[in-house]
Amino acid sequence: MLRSRTAGSLRAADAGQTVTLAGWVARRRDHGGVIFIDLRDGGTGGQERSESGSGPSVAQVVFRDAEVLAQAHRLRAEFCVAVTGVVEIRPEGNTNAEIPTGEIEVNASSLTVLGESAPLPFQLDETAGEEARLRYRYLDLRRERPGRAIRLRSKVNAAARAVLERHDFVEIETPTLTRSTPEGARDFLVPARLQPGSFYALPQSPQLFKQLLMVAGMERYYQIARCYRDEDFRADRQPEFTQLDLEMSFVEADDVIAVSEEILKALWALIGYDLPTPLPRITHSEAMRRYGSDKPDLRFGVELVDCTDYFSDTPFRVFQAPHVGAVVMPGGASQPRRTLDGWQEFAKQRGHKGLAYVLIAEDGTLGGPVAKNLSDAERDGLAAHVGAKPGDCVFFAAGSAKSARALLGATRIEIAKRLDLIDPNAWALAWVVDWPLFEPADDAQAAGDVAVGSGAWTAVHHAFTAPQPQSESTFDTDPGTALANAYDIVCNGNEIGGGSIRIHRRDVQERVFEMMGIDSAEAQDKFGFLLDAFTFGAPPHGGIAFGWDRITALLAGEDSIREVIAFPKTGGGVDPLTDAPAPITAQQRKESGIDAKPEPAEKA
Amino acid sequence: MLRSRTAGSLRAADAGQTVTLAGWVARRRDHGGVIFIDLRDGGTGGQERSESGSGPSVAQVVFRDAEVLAQAHRLRAEFCVAVTGVVEIRPEGNTNAEIPTGEIEVNASSLTVLGESAPLPFQLDETAGEEARLRYRYLDLRRERPGRAIRLRSKVNAAARAVLERHDFVEIETPTLTRSTPEGARDFLVPARLQPGSFYALPQSPQLFKQLLMVAGMERYYQIARCYRDEDFRADRQPEFTQLDLEMSFVEADDVIAVSEEILKALWALIGYDLPTPLPRITHSEAMRRYGSDKPDLRFGVELVDCTDYFSDTPFRVFQAPHVGAVVMPGGASQPRRTLDGWQEFAKQRGHKGLAYVLIAEDGTLGGPVAKNLSDAERDGLAAHVGAKPGDCVFFAAGSAKSARALLGATRIEIAKRLDLIDPNAWALAWVVDWPLFEPADDAQAAGDVAVGSGAWTAVHHAFTAPQPQSESTFDTDPGTALANAYDIVCNGNEIGGGSIRIHRRDVQERVFEMMGIDSAEAQDKFGFLLDAFTFGAPPHGGIAFGWDRITALLAGEDSIREVIAFPKTGGGVDPLTDAPAPITAQQRKESGIDAKPEPAEKA
Repeated sequence: MLRSRTAGSLRAADAGQTVTLAGWVARRRDHGGVIFIDLRDGGTGGQERSESGSGPSVAQVVFRDAEVLAQAHRLRAEFCVAVTGVVEIRPEGNTNAEIPTGEIEVNASSLTVLGESAPLPFQLDETAGEEARLRYRYLDLRRERPGRAIRLRSKVNAAARAVLERHDFVEIETPTLTRSTPEGARDFLVPARLQPGSFYALPQSPQLFKQLLMVAGMERYYQIARCYRDEDFRADRQPEFTQLDLEMSFVEADDVIAVSEEILKALWALIGYDLPTPLPRITHSEAMRRYGSDKPDLRFGVELVDCTDYFSDTPFRVFQAPHVGAVVMPGGASQPRRTLDGWQEFAKQRGHKGLAYVLIAEDGTLGGPVAKNLSDAERDGLAAHVGAKPGDCVFFAAGSAKSARALLGATRIEIAKRLDLIDPNAWALAWVVDWPLFEPADDAQAAGDVAVGSGAWTAVHHAFTAPQPQSESTFDTDPGTALANAYDIVCNGNEIGGGSIRIHRRDVQERVFEMMGIDSAEAQDKFGFLLDAFTFGAPPHGGIAFGWDRITALLAGEDSIREVIAFPKTGGGVDPLTDAPAPITAQQRKESGIDAKPEPAEKA
Repeated sequence: MLRSRTAGSLRAADAGQTVTLAGWVARRRDHGGVIFIDLRDGGTGGQERSESGSGPSVAQVVFRDAEVLAQAHRLRAEFCVAVTGVVEIRPEGNTNAEIPTGEIEVNASSLTVLGESAPLPFQLDETAGEEARLRYRYLDLRRERPGRAIRLRSKVNAAARAVLERHDFVEIETPTLTRSTPEGARDFLVPARLQPGSFYALPQSPQLFKQLLMVAGMERYYQIARCYRDEDFRADRQPEFTQLDLEMSFVEADDVIAVSEEILKALWALIGYDLPTPLPRITHSEAMRRYGSDKPDLRFGVELVDCTDYFSDTPFRVFQAPHVGAVVMPGGASQPRRTLDGWQEFAKQRGHKGLAYVLIAEDGTLGGPVAKNLSDAERDGLAAHVGAKPGDCVFFAAGSAKSARALLGATRIEIAKRLDLIDPNAWALAWVVDWPLFEPADDAQAAGDVAVGSGAWTAVHHAFTAPQPQSESTFDTDPGTALANAYDIVCNGNEIGGGSIRIHRRDVQERVFEMMGIDSAEAQDKFGFLLDAFTFGAPPHGGIAFGWDRITALLAGEDSIREVIAFPKTGGGVDPLTDAPAPITAQQRKESGIDAKPEPAEKA
């Protein structure tokens, strides 16, 4: 090793020892004819990082002796250096109580420049634009916060694995050059040189392979798995992302949930939070009813109120709808006109016509453009029905229950943000259970999801989700009410994992495919290997996949998953560091077989 | 859980307890009007698997009671079942000392068929062809040996991680949708839909990213990384494979070797072998000289003998070569003519003209077609020079040292196989060190390797390998003698890992590129991000990558890496289970942007 100690490990007790440090010049100060530098390193090899909380591993080095002082003049920020010297107690009045090494300094007797640094594109203690941060990610990661996020991710992996190993899970790698099997998003494709015109697909998840592993008797599988979706990279998505993927045989939903909670508890313990388990559970219908979302943020109230019956005889045409709901903004009556107009814009951006509202004056009278359209009785009872007080604003949405609740759910979140109702230190995790098995394909498409299959119904989770026992015999005759044996885990309004008990019987799987408009020929063509596997003694099984990037981002206190990915891509799928993707050479193109078109299938 | 106990955990002490087992019907026997089955499960949730050594988790279930007996008649091999019953001591004389549960049986009171099984394509206790095994991999993995190999792999991962975590390594995921940067093999390409005509490449290794992580101050990185090479899949290669990849800053070769040995020791401990460390080291030139291989199998002797000087004045034209070497086959003089002809074929298949030999008769006279071409003096001293005894056969190769040694090295291995000289239980691990930095590009091509760059010289390892300090200033003036700071680890004749100290200075890196015929424009275009990174205080660093599939195969006692991959591909890159790769739809082709050709670059 080119060092004998890490910088952050030095203490007053080390005084008198000769040490060699190696790291980077974090800061240089010339003072009284001598040069001081803060030498920063990665702090591996000791407890110093955790002892000092979240701080970097840093020690002060002083160049006093004429010979090293002369050499030290060339030092600039981010030079990589090795320094040998004696640990000394700092002169009185010069100690720094803010850092664990603040009592000492290293009096340098030799200096080796291991790597010079050109002037930096941005200073490490200043903010930088995203493009610059990604292009010089190797400098960005030297900074405290980005580097800490990546190190935390490693601990997150280790904590989860410790739980899984305790429960005898087998870590198994599944293929990433696999077959294109549409799961809702577009596949990334890889031309197969040895079979020109044929392509591998990168997996959207290891779903089918992990189910096959259960058929194989592996019983408990896990993998921290790279997954790929060729979507438009809006909304903080990455073309490649990571799941903690697990699957268990001979289990019920509660068994998967119990292991999952043990994992989550271990993860939150990493940031000093004792996650209370078992976690609360909320049914999908209750989540939609009370929060207008299947991933409700439970850190605050502001619940939705159903007003459909209340307005059942309303003279107001807009409220003569299958569903009318409301959400109350406390103190919202005092919003100026321009702000209220802004809410209309908010609704329009989400694809709605507008956001009806009623303002409740301090004297209890109702204001705003909607109020005059209501009947006297409706006006009189409204505040009581929705739980509003004088000074509040009541927002309304009318239409289909799905659409109205979606708008009110978004409004609820926005109210909480504007009124600062969210405790930034709160953690609200919950399971959303009792999901519908199917939804009308039109609804899925309207919501921007991809409906797999060509049927009138599509799977809310995916085609491999088992119906709940009471729905097993009726899901194809009454698809609208069938419940899935599925469970999603939400945290502070984010879906951080989703799972289910799977179908393990060929007949049930075929019936689900049929509901989705996948006929038996198509099913055999695309999923025949799974259907076949189910005929050889398939065990009941279920599992879950956690959004590993999102969970790590939450634990790191970061809004974007890009912060917990070592080399993330921009919204356009570009890596500004390596300039990927890039054109290929003519020879690469020729060899890859990309341009081969498969021969038309022969007629049978 | 659908079971209360695993089958393999039951013991005589459990007698009288009511248990529920779930698993597969491994065997059914009808005997004396009752039905016995061996119920097999994955054996998770207990120590039973390790207690019983390598055996499966199995218990005998007996169906005696009329009601369950009637149901049990439908049971066939590999039905998946749950059984509830009372643990009972087997009747005297019926115990089975071969299995840990051999003293008990479960007297079933209820039987649930969880999954029926169609007739099997092959019986689990019979051998099956590779194609069938892969197509029905979910059945193949239910078998003892294949299942054990996959479970061992999980333990291999855990053992390595335990060492790495102890040494403060940070686990970091690097991108797999990255830029094509030729590293010697063909890249798999992925069309970038959002940049039609541009492509991502799947990484051949995380080499450049891990070096960037060192520049980023991460100091100790590891990853169990999926890698991709679009080669012709000869010689037990897979298009996707796995490396344990690690990198360290501020280290010398010995530091990387020390951590590596700790990992290897932990791995071999998994199979009960105490690997003696430090491991022996052998220089590359010694390995070539004594064993004719850069991955020598050190489990046996049969060393090569240099005869170049011995034949310096030979009248035999064939031996008037830059290099003549020999290897002795003990007792080989008695080989019949047909066998000796077979050796010629053996040499021809390896691209050589033949394999010269001399037979030493029991009376010391020399036989075979070569002997009469030698001088008297050469004949007289030959046996002594090569260390042969009466009855031995001496094989010769002449030509370039590289070519002659390659043939003799292969001959040496073949001799050991034919004479059964290899102890199948022996483990011979060693480091091969002091590699040449460069080799003539012609030599590389002649050996079937790809020479990167267009120069007369190419890197033996890769372009990022640092020269040894004494070669740093001279490697471009005297490339033939420059040594690399590289180390490969070999085991029983397999290369199982390779690493080096890397170049961390831009000027040195540019000089190496230049030697390889990569001019500065090309270097900046392809590797500019790395060269740039080196100008911002890059630390000295080095690392290693272990061939994780090969190591696991060795530990599992398997010849092929396919045995330790859950869903391997055939030699043609096909997965017979999912039928990947497959044709894509016209819409997929259109959307992917595959058919876009990049515009020709504008003239500057």
